[in-house]
Amino acid sequence: MSKPLVSIVMGSANDWEVMQQSARALQDFGVEFDARVISAHRSPDLLFDYIKDMTGQGVQCFIAGAGGAAHLAGVVASFFPLPVIGVPIKSSALNGLDALFSIVQMPPGVPVACVGINNAKNAALLAIQILAASDKGLQKKVGEYKKKLAKIITEKNIKLNKIGIKKYLKGGKK
Amino acid sequence: MSKPLVSIVMGSANDWEVMQQSARALQDFGVEFDARVISAHRSPDLLFDYIKDMTGQGVQCFIAGAGGAAHLAGVVASFFPLPVIGVPIKSSALNGLDALFSIVQMPPGVPVACVGINNAKNAALLAIQILAASDKGLQKKVGEYKKKLAKIITEKNIKLNKIGIKKYLKGGKK
Amino acid sequence: MSKPLVSIVMGSANDWEVMQQSARALQDFGVEFDARVISAHRSPDLLFDYIKDMTGQGVQCFIAGAGGAAHLAGVVASFFPLPVIGVPIKSSALNGLDALFSIVQMPPGVPVACVGINNAKNAALLAIQILAASDKGLQKKVGEYKKKLAKIITEKNIKLNKIGIKKYLKGGKK
Amino acid sequence: MSKPLVSIVMGSANDWEVMQQSARALQDFGVEFDARVISAHRSPDLLFDYIKDMTGQGVQCFIAGAGGAAHLAGVVASFFPLPVIGVPIKSSALNGLDALFSIVQMPPGVPVACVGINNAKNAALLAIQILAASDKGLQKKVGEYKKKLAKIITEKNIKLNKIGIKKYLKGGKK
Amino acid sequence: MSKPLVSIVMGSANDWEVMQQSARALQDFGVEFDARVISAHRSPDLLFDYIKDMTGQGVQCFIAGAGGAAHLAGVVASFFPLPVIGVPIKSSALNGLDALFSIVQMPPGVPVACVGINNAKNAALLAIQILAASDKGLQKKVGEYKKKLAKIITEKNIKLNKIGIKKYLKGGKK
Amino acid sequence: MSKPLVSIVMGSANDWEVMQQSARALQDFGVEFDARVISAHRSPDLLFDYIKDMTGQGVQCFIAGAGGAAHLAGVVASFFPLPVIGVPIKSSALNGLDALFSIVQMPPGVPVACVGINNAKNAALLAIQILAASDKGLQKKVGEYKKKLAKIITEKNIKLNKIGIKKYLKGGKK
Amino acid sequence: MSKPLVSIVMGSANDWEVMQQSARALQDFGVEFDARVISAHRSPDLLFDYIKDMTGQGVQCFIAGAGGAAHLAGVVASFFPLPVIGVPIKSSALNGLDALFSIVQMPPGVPVACVGINNAKNAALLAIQILAASDKGLQKKVGEYKKKLAKIITEKNIKLNKIGIKKYLKGGKK
Amino acid sequence: MSKPLVSIVMGSANDWEVMQQSARALQDFGVEFDARVISAHRSPDLLFDYIKDMTGQGVQCFIAGAGGAAHLAGVVASFFPLPVIGVPIKSSALNGLDALFSIVQMPPGVPVACVGINNAKNAALLAIQILAASDKGLQKKVGEYKKKLAKIITEKNIKLNKIGIKKYLKGGKK
Repeated sequence: MSKPLVSIVMGSANDWEVMQQSARALQDFGVEFDARVISAHRSPDLLFDYIKDMTGQGVQCFIAGAGGAAHLAGVVASFFPLPVIGVPIKSSALNGLDALFSIVQMPPGVPVACVGINNAKNAALLAIQILAASDKGLQKKVGEYKKKLAKIITEKNIKLNKIGIKKYLKGGKK
Repeated sequence: MSKPLVSIVMGSANDWEVMQQSARALQDFGVEFDARVISAHRSPDLLFDYIKDMTGQGVQCFIAGAGGAAHLAGVVASFFPLPVIGVPIKSSALNGLDALFSIVQMPPGVPVACVGINNAKNAALLAIQILAASDKGLQKKVGEYKKKLAKIITEKNIKLNKIGIKKYLKGGKK
Repeated sequence: MSKPLVSIVMGSANDWEVMQQSARALQDFGVEFDARVISAHRSPDLLFDYIKDMTGQGVQCFIAGAGGAAHLAGVVASFFPLPVIGVPIKSSALNGLDALFSIVQMPPGVPVACVGINNAKNAALLAIQILAASDKGLQKKVGEYKKKLAKIITEKNIKLNKIGIKKYLKGGKK
Repeated sequence: MSKPLVSIVMGSANDWEVMQQSARALQDFGVEFDARVISAHRSPDLLFDYIKDMTGQGVQCFIAGAGGAAHLAGVVASFFPLPVIGVPIKSSALNGLDALFSIVQMPPGVPVACVGINNAKNAALLAIQILAASDKGLQKKVGEYKKKLAKIITEKNIKLNKIGIKKYLKGGKK
Repeated sequence: MSKPLVSIVMGSANDWEVMQQSARALQDFGVEFDARVISAHRSPDLLFDYIKDMTGQGVQCFIAGAGGAAHLAGVVASFFPLPVIGVPIKSSALNGLDALFSIVQMPPGVPVACVGINNAKNAALLAIQILAASDKGLQKKVGEYKKKLAKIITEKNIKLNKIGIKKYLKGGKK
Repeated sequence: MSKPLVSIVMGSANDWEVMQQSARALQDFGVEFDARVISAHRSPDLLFDYIKDMTGQGVQCFIAGAGGAAHLAGVVASFFPLPVIGVPIKSSALNGLDALFSIVQMPPGVPVACVGINNAKNAALLAIQILAASDKGLQKKVGEYKKKLAKIITEKNIKLNKIGIKKYLKGGKK
Repeated sequence: MSKPLVSIVMGSANDWEVMQQSARALQDFGVEFDARVISAHRSPDLLFDYIKDMTGQGVQCFIAGAGGAAHLAGVVASFFPLPVIGVPIKSSALNGLDALFSIVQMPPGVPVACVGINNAKNAALLAIQILAASDKGLQKKVGEYKKKLAKIITEKNIKLNKIGIKKYLKGGKK
Repeated sequence: MSKPLVSIVMGSANDWEVMQQSARALQDFGVEFDARVISAHRSPDLLFDYIKDMTGQGVQCFIAGAGGAAHLAGVVASFFPLPVIGVPIKSSALNGLDALFSIVQMPPGVPVACVGINNAKNAALLAIQILAASDKGLQKKVGEYKKKLAKIITEKNIKLNKIGIKKYLKGGKK
């Protein structure tokens, strides 16, 4: 197996349901990655060792997902010298707003790149764009992905027109 | 100088304006303390060494004040085995709500005792109550403090009545 | 039965579903406790008698859980001279944010140690840490608990690696 | 001096700047009142005595103003059998939103009539309307007050037209 | 049928599920009331006629429940000279926070007594307390109601003790 | 088929469940419209072409519905010279509050007319009112619609009285 | 003086500081307007007469600005059959969020077109776009305005380049 | 002058006060950049030309700062294939919360890396980390910067100890 370029960490095994979107997107783009469940609060030493290990293996970007008082991305960012992407996870009574604030409001000097609540897919795409800055092949794939997104929308649109919106409304319920 | 029983840490020197309320209250109750500026994000190793050092010296309680993505109290709590009190500091566009969420919404297993935004005085009083659980002298002081609070209110009240509220309203401007 | 060291009060019988986490954690650590449903608003006299009774019996810490305009912890704190821990309970349209504000924003002079919304487990752990400050046996148990938390995470991690994340993704649905 | 019909209590002497609007409005309508600074948290016994005293004297309505974890109105309501009006005061980093939630979200069975943040004037007008339900003289005054409010608006309006809005805009800066 | 003393209005027939708590509580206390669905926005003229009609019949208090941009209580208050109680109803994506703000933040001069989100029961209890200010029989009933609330809590408490909390925990699931 | 006067665009096919309320209302009033799924972010060029096409065909008003970082209405407004109505859609952890802020807080110079969260029906009614400003026939229909709304409320009201609220309460459960 | 096409109403004379932006923009585009201070709550009858008067004079659009529980736009919309634009005004402790919710969350059937907090300029531009739908001259002016906005930005940009950003940074303080 | 590697765009000239922190940090690290004021809403065509121009020149990362309905970063991200960093700017009544939501809640497929409100410095540091992924020299500088941050904290700390906190408290006012 090749060395990972991206590392995905999450604060709890429950976060995997959200964070596997990151794994899936990285896989789709052919980017090697590693994924772990490591809590910043419950297993800090394990986390520090892991960051050191990944840095040594040449990982270029971390994706850290956590809910509640989501300190994971910040703790990674205090050690790792390259980009850290944070994914606020909706896991509490506050709907992920707590995790969003805990991740995005980092102090000057220690940045974290925050994406939307539960938006682990975008975290992976951002990691891919970061790698693509120095990888022409990946940059080309991103361009193709952007075109594909537009194409899907265009096709949905044509289909919507063919069916006929008004016909749909006439026959539709409610 | 005696060994400290409480340690005050804050994320930035700017937090001192708020956190000195903790220092002042501990001093008023005659409780030895240590106080430091150590950022969880900018100087993590310094923080870990400091927590170890304080634990060794017999500190029984930490007070950690921070603003924004306030991870300091959580990081201390992941290492320190005794009570950690967090003070959310109003330092950002979000008026301290971000710090409040970052401190109070800790995951199950790693508690932080959160007080009100900027309420460093209450953090110290809480630390004193924690120490008082096994210190009869301190417990007596807390009882006297509670009586003094009530007495101040009662005196203000009497004074307000003597002056006469309505007289005040008549003579007063808006 | 031994005398209780911790008292759990809650504003409504419905809060028991959340507050039993406190009871369970105290039991796991072998800490004697008492638990009651007493509303600050509907049965204030009962509450005052109970606080007096518990204080007399040597309770060292209160855990108070309530939702909505959650005044319970504050009312206990105005009488009880030792630490009071508040648990905001999610019971209204405002998802517990009202209870959080009502518990955490106490005035200077009367502290309450607030934990996360519905996080009654952390309230108990905090109570245990408070007792542990003067109880070496309990302090040892807290240290072991912290190690166990880290061990659970480490084991999950190893297992995740053995199964193989990418294999999981290939075979996975969605 | 006649016996008071309304009692104004506030949690801190600082609240007087806001709460004097209540005093002034009651005075304008010729309604006897008493006003006190009594903290629910710092002087609970004083508060209970005062509520008992006022109930005995025939007070028909309480107005309670407080900021932060504003429990004052709720504590009064748990004892006083007639209407309690709460005024959330803007005194913390949370702009009075904490006081609003603490006052308005009372549990079923113990109502508090909440008015807007810092709107102590409306608290007094509400108290007057409550008294007016059984006092024809007061009811007439309320009717006249409503007419006066409309008249002030109408006059401002006429004046605005006479000056000429567009002329104002032409001569105006910015 | 006797003349109504309280009028319940609601902005939509869907609000009845919440507002019937008001009706039920008034009925329990033997207070005559009228109840209507009248939208401030969709049927303003009907609303004005109704307020006039009720004022003429001697209604002493309005209870107005509405969700979203809940203007109903405010519109009633702009015409009705006696107390208006507003019930914010949770009916939108904003969980009733919009209705709360729309009801509680009335301008100086036109008060509305706001209760908690969906707390139509408290609105009725508040109306009963308002009527009780000049009705000794009703005042007695309120006193008995308060005692009953305390008694229910006390009984639950005793029962909880008899069963034994720890036994419950041992046998309990989860 | 006649030329469309209103164009409905939405950021995702999932938004159709909400946005069809706009289509249905326009159809009920006999206003010709076109409806498309075009993402501002995923298919910007398609969007620009579509705006140009609709402007050429004489569309007088756009209705744009989107959730999350809902930029669609703003992007349309930066090109289209006539009114743009924005519908914030509840599609994320933030319940549509993010979409509301993204649509309503446009910079000076580029207005968007924002309606309530998920309130696509009102967006269509607003579009109809805009067209009605220069179409007497449509203006008459709006007048009739307003009367119908009032009539429905009045009828519900009468029915509620006939059944008898109290009877309903007696027989009702809970 | 020609008949007004747009009417500006505001809930309080204090709102004029914000609402004059609407007046100024309408004047710049040569659109006749009328402007009044009329409170929905303090002078409802005056408001109803005014709406009737303006409707009779052929006003095609209302702009209503209000703060706090901002019901003004909604009340106008319940009577006026053509577009009503609402401007939430920042006038309370809640920074205009209360006014925003009170204006934007109107019930289905009675739309209000909401603009950003304090953004009275955009309200006027929206009114102008509404009139422009049937006024080719005005439509041309809107097109020119859009070009002017772009030109201002372009010129600022060129100037920024000429001065040289880095030079500015070198010479600049902080 | 060398070709820029990073482009800074901002929605309004007023944003420069915040965004110059980005410029300054890039300059400190010796990274070439370009900076422009281009509104997504007022000058969309200028923006599209600029993105195309920068892409052609080899820019590897955009930093986009905007307030209110901050669409700028999202619009850039819909065209630019490499990383886009968004800076929410506090410029409205909502304290930057609107800009934060508008930037961070991007739809799946089109990521934006969001930093804290007004934290333009972190945006630049993130851009530098992105470039550092393929630039060993820059990576070294980031490592030195991290050490310098820790050193500054350590020195402040030592100084604080030498002066003596308690001495400071004794001599200090308040």
